Formats: sequence, structure tokens, C-alpha cells
Amino acid sequence: MSPSLPVITLLTDFGTADYFVGAVKGAILSVNPSAVIADITHEIPPQDIAAGAFTVFAAYETFPAGTIHVAVVDPGVGSTRRPIIVSANEQFFVGPDNGIFTYIYDREPSHKTFHVTSDRYFRPSPSSTFHGRDIFAPVAAALSTGIAPEEFGPEINDAVRLPSLDTPLRIIHIDRFGNCITNITRELLPSDTSVVINGQTITEFRQFYGEGDKESLFAIWGSAGFLEISMNGGSAAKLLSAKRDDLVLLE
Amino acid sequence: MSPSLPVITLLTDFGTADYFVGAVKGAILSVNPSAVIADITHEIPPQDIAAGAFTVFAAYETFPAGTIHVAVVDPGVGSTRRPIIVSANEQFFVGPDNGIFTYIYDREPSHKTFHVTSDRYFRPSPSSTFHGRDIFAPVAAALSTGIAPEEFGPEINDAVRLPSLDTPLRIIHIDRFGNCITNITRELLPSDTSVVINGQTITEFRQFYGEGDKESLFAIWGSAGFLEISMNGGSAAKLLSAKRDDLVLLE
Amino acid sequence: MSPSLPVITLLTDFGTADYFVGAVKGAILSVNPSAVIADITHEIPPQDIAAGAFTVFAAYETFPAGTIHVAVVDPGVGSTRRPIIVSANEQFFVGPDNGIFTYIYDREPSHKTFHVTSDRYFRPSPSSTFHGRDIFAPVAAALSTGIAPEEFGPEINDAVRLPSLDTPLRIIHIDRFGNCITNITRELLPSDTSVVINGQTITEFRQFYGEGDKESLFAIWGSAGFLEISMNGGSAAKLLSAKRDDLVLLE
Repeated sequence: MSPSLPVITLLTDFGTADYFVGAVKGAILSVNPSAVIADITHEIPPQDIAAGAFTVFAAYETFPAGTIHVAVVDPGVGSTRRPIIVSANEQFFVGPDNGIFTYIYDREPSHKTFHVTSDRYFRPSPSSTFHGRDIFAPVAAALSTGIAPEEFGPEINDAVRLPSLDTPLRIIHIDRFGNCITNITRELLPSDTSVVINGQTITEFRQFYGEGDKESLFAIWGSAGFLEISMNGGSAAKLLSAKRDDLVLLE
Repeated sequence: MSPSLPVITLLTDFGTADYFVGAVKGAILSVNPSAVIADITHEIPPQDIAAGAFTVFAAYETFPAGTIHVAVVDPGVGSTRRPIIVSANEQFFVGPDNGIFTYIYDREPSHKTFHVTSDRYFRPSPSSTFHGRDIFAPVAAALSTGIAPEEFGPEINDAVRLPSLDTPLRIIHIDRFGNCITNITRELLPSDTSVVINGQTITEFRQFYGEGDKESLFAIWGSAGFLEISMNGGSAAKLLSAKRDDLVLLE
Repeated sequence: MSPSLPVITLLTDFGTADYFVGAVKGAILSVNPSAVIADITHEIPPQDIAAGAFTVFAAYETFPAGTIHVAVVDPGVGSTRRPIIVSANEQFFVGPDNGIFTYIYDREPSHKTFHVTSDRYFRPSPSSTFHGRDIFAPVAAALSTGIAPEEFGPEINDAVRLPSLDTPLRIIHIDRFGNCITNITRELLPSDTSVVINGQTITEFRQFYGEGDKESLFAIWGSAGFLEISMNGGSAAKLLSAKRDDLVLLE
């Protein structure tokens, strides 16, 4: 087996139809041609920071130590929002300081956050519209060559946060199949209890999707470690008229 | 040139909007950081095993010896369907035992199939909903480090199969352009003969797509080695009201 | 850090739902298992050579020296259009001779173009319908192993070109958000002047997308180096009824 190469993951809302993702990859490979680039997704709904936050959170733990996660959902590009590097779980996270790493902060209490103030590792003459290519990609690539996060700027303790994953009990994500992912963990719900969303009570618990009747709602322990409300052959979110942040009650 | 790294291809029905594909890549790279991951597609229609079977079949031969193909279209995830490894063409195939490798069995008569019974190479505490991440990815990655397929479980001879590629003559796949791919090979059809589908006779044969009139049906030898019924500027499947498994007659 | 591996980028109109992209990757890795494959996009609108030309142009400069760009938007596949290799910017470009590299020719006056006449590096028995897999992929992979472009065929000086990037002033690309990218550069427009498209005058200039009112048109220096006409929360192209090649006037 060859020595391991540094892995850089990409998560954006750029879509895959334009040149944006290609330009980010080129900017990384120009700095570190040995970087292994792994796309997580480029289909975060445009400017949906919370969806980006959930997605990077649900994927990061599967990657090896040393991985660098670049997450760019960045409605404030060009404004004064800070570029940051988060060090956590023996990995790095690079992106805008807009809350996209909130759930990493929650899960990894010993993380450190650095404000990228040095432009030494940026591409020359960075644009004001494409920091993914001009700032985040080259910073991630520089990290992948072994440069310490302290070299990019000072540690900070006031990073922007979305509401915590912990409370209140609510829907934190709706995936493209209409599964409603809650922030209820097994520790919170040691035995299977009924769950109420938008006035509807879900009493059925399943072990896996294929079981039982179609077109009825059920609860299931999802692969991200949270209770999900699902439905075979249809969208649970649609049936429940549910959206992110809707509250969930335990009975 | 560097020494070659092991290639692991991915074919799923996960879509690319969620964290699922990223989690599979992370699970592979955590076991073998030197694996080269090549996406074939993640847009197999949900739970469409036959579409997955055709797609892995149409792509596998272009990859080098030693490649490991992971194919996860898995309506039975969490149930008792078996995880398997197929050894064929100096490559490996990893996925659920639901027929997804049928056309590999047909094309590679000297293949061997192994039932993965040892959980030694699984991720810890595998979920019942995401075997792509927790079982198939780490098994493929373990194979890529040189572990022999026999180490994962016993050889079996009763793998699940879809109807064979050979008979009856029929449409085996419809691609996203509406091309109807049949199971007719050049050996079956040494000279160009008329073809009848759903009562319509196609008499025109073309060498390549750009030739001749638009909006008329024609037959063409497609890049997967089969006769295709196509149409420029429109969907042959729509015009013929054709669907997979519709019979094809030679005149 | 490991020695750098050769990068091969892919840009096609194949979509990502079928086996086509996987087959191209396999064909590359079969020739050079050490190649690093980076997808730019596979969602160029079918047969839209000009959209492919813009996209490869907007991405290529971010990639390192030695990169090989494969661009396959190829309505003439199977006909007599020539396969070519372009050498420019210490990189290579491989694809059909249909104008897809026009903007590279414009930007890199010292480029050289070679007509690939030798079939020595093709896959055996190349199909007439899938030159991406059978011709362009293996030629790119052969280049990545160090074979000189002269080995593939003679230099030519009559490559097919689309209208030049330089004149007339016009919209050269509309991206998926409806941003209208013009061919106006900063050299052409040293100070911010009003711009007229389809009878509508745009007077507002912005530094970045997030500024100012929503739903009004504005001009912005885009990340590809050109003036773009944009709109927050809507499609500038739709509001302007603009399409590619519409003329732009400076006031």
C-alpha cells in the first residue's frame, strides 16, 4: 500500500453544471497535486447554511484523521464575514464563519477555531465573488501540505453559531426523499415512544425501511444517529407539512 | 509513473444531494487512504436493481484488473438478503445479493461468489439502514488492501439472478435520452435486419447518431455492444411507448 | 508529499445518470492507473459546443502545469470531424475539432494543435458512437504517461473555431442561475459605465452578490474575469429575455 495522501472533501451549493467545482479542484491541485479530492455534495440548496451544516456533520466522522473538509455555502461572500479554519477530531474544516460548522462545535467540544487573516496562501488577486476558488481551496490545500492552522491567523472564540443541535427537540434536516431527521438521539429516547409532529402522532417504529406497510408514517433510527420520521413510497415531510425547525414532542 | 493504486468504483441510487455518497467515500478512505475512488453514477432510479445491473455491466470491462466495483441498489437493506463479493474478470464486485450482478454472471462464466458472513471488516455497530457505508464500503476497502475474498465468508452457488441477458430478445435498458437498448448482439444479427418493437418496424440502420433525418427511428450498434433503437431530437422510448422488458422481434 | 500524479479533467454533455462517465474513467485508468481524474462537469447542455467551450476556458487556468483537459461535446461523433490535441499553457486539451477549444486558442496565442491520426493509442475496435471512451480517454491517458503530442499525428493550422471571444461585445454564456456573462473585460471598461442589453440599461455596479436590493439588475465583475449582468433572487437572463450572442452596448 502506498503512503496515504491527504484527503480534501468538498461540500458546496455550486451545483455541478457550471465551471465552479472544476475551478475549486484546479485551485487545490495547483497547490498540492497529491491531494485526494472527495466530493461530498455540490447540491446544498443555494445559500442554505443549515443544510450545509447538517450534511458536513453527517459525513465528517467517516473520514480518516488528517482529512480537510471544505464547506462553502456562503451568502456573505465578498462582505466582512470571516474565513475560518476549525481544528477538531484530528481533522480540519475550512469555510466561511457563518455557522456552517455549528454541529461540529457541538459534537467536538475541544475544537479550536482560527480566523484566516493572512492572505499569504490565497490565490493572487482574489475575487470578491468566488472565495471557494480564491481563498478556501488554496487554504485547504496549504493545510494539506502540513502548514499549521496557527500560520493562517489568530485563534478566535466568537465563531458564529446556528441554534445548537441539542434543544429544542425539532426537525433539523429534511432529505431529498422527504425523510424528516430530528435531533432526538438514543440517549434521549431509551425506549421507543410515540412522537408528535404538527399534531400527528407516529407510534410505529421500524428497524429498516423495507418492513411493513407502504404509505404509512413510521419512526426509524437513521444512519446519522438520529430518529427520523419516514414513509415508504412517499414523502413524510409532505404528508406532515413539515419543514426544518418544526418542533417534535415525545409522548 | 507511480505504482498503480487500487481503484474502487461506486454505483448507487443514493443521489448526490445528501451526505450518503460522502459517507461511503469516507468509510473507504478510513480503511484504505490510498484507494482511488471513481464514481460511475449515483442516479440509478431508486431501488431499480435491473437498471443498476445494466449500468455496472456496461462499465466494468473498461476498468483495469484489480478494480473493485461497489454497487448498492438495495431495497432489502436491513433484511436477511446476503452481502456478497463476486470475483470475475480479475476484478471484484461488492453489493447485495439481489441480482444486481446477474449480467456479470452471464458474461463471466468462471466467476465465483462469496457470501460475506464475517463482520470483522464491517464498521463498528453497523446500522440496519445504511449498509453502503457500514458494510459494503469497508469490505471493498479491505479487499483493496489485498485481503482474499475467501476471508469474508464461504463461496455460494445460489446467488439471486434476474432474467438472463440472453433470452428472450427484449429491451434491457432505456437510457436518459430515451434510447432503447436491446439484448441483441452482432453474433445474433450478422446482417442488418428489420426489428419490430410494439408493432412498429424499424428498417433504417445507422453507423452513428448524427447521420440522416431527425425525428425518425433508427437502429444503431451502441457502445455497450448491443443493438439500440434511437431517434435524433427525441425519445425513441416515448415514440414506441416502450419500457424495459418489452419484446423485440427480428424480421 | 508524494510526487505529483498527472491530472486529467473531464468535461462532457453525457450527464451522470448513465454508464458513460464511468466507462471514460475506466478507459483512462486502464491505460494509466496513476492518473488523477477531476470532473469539471458532465452537464453541458447536450451538443452545446459553445457552452462547453466557455466552461473549459473558465476552469483551465486554475489547474497545474501538465494537466490534460478532455472535453467531449461532440455532435459529429462517428463522422469525419477530426480528433485533436491542443498544447497550450503547459497543459493539453483533448477533444473533437469542432470549436470547443476556441477560447483557449484566443487566450493562448502560442498554442499548437495536432490532428490525432494514429490509432495506436485508441481502444481496440473503437465504436463509431462513443469516442469519449474509445479515442479521447485513451489518448489523454497516453499523454499523461509522457508520450509527446507529435506522436499522435501532424500539427495543423486550420482547427475549427467558433466566433472569437473578442468581438462583437455580447453575451457569451448564461449560467444556471441566469447570470449573463459578457465578453467585456476590465481592459475594455476601465471605469464603470452603463451597459445596454436588449434595450434595457443597467447602471448599478456591485462588488459582490450580497449587496443592495434584491430583484434589481446589476453589473458585477465575475469570477471568470468578465462583466456579468446579475440579479439577486431571480434570473437576469429571464428578466432581459437574453440569450447567448445577444449584443451588449456600452454607454
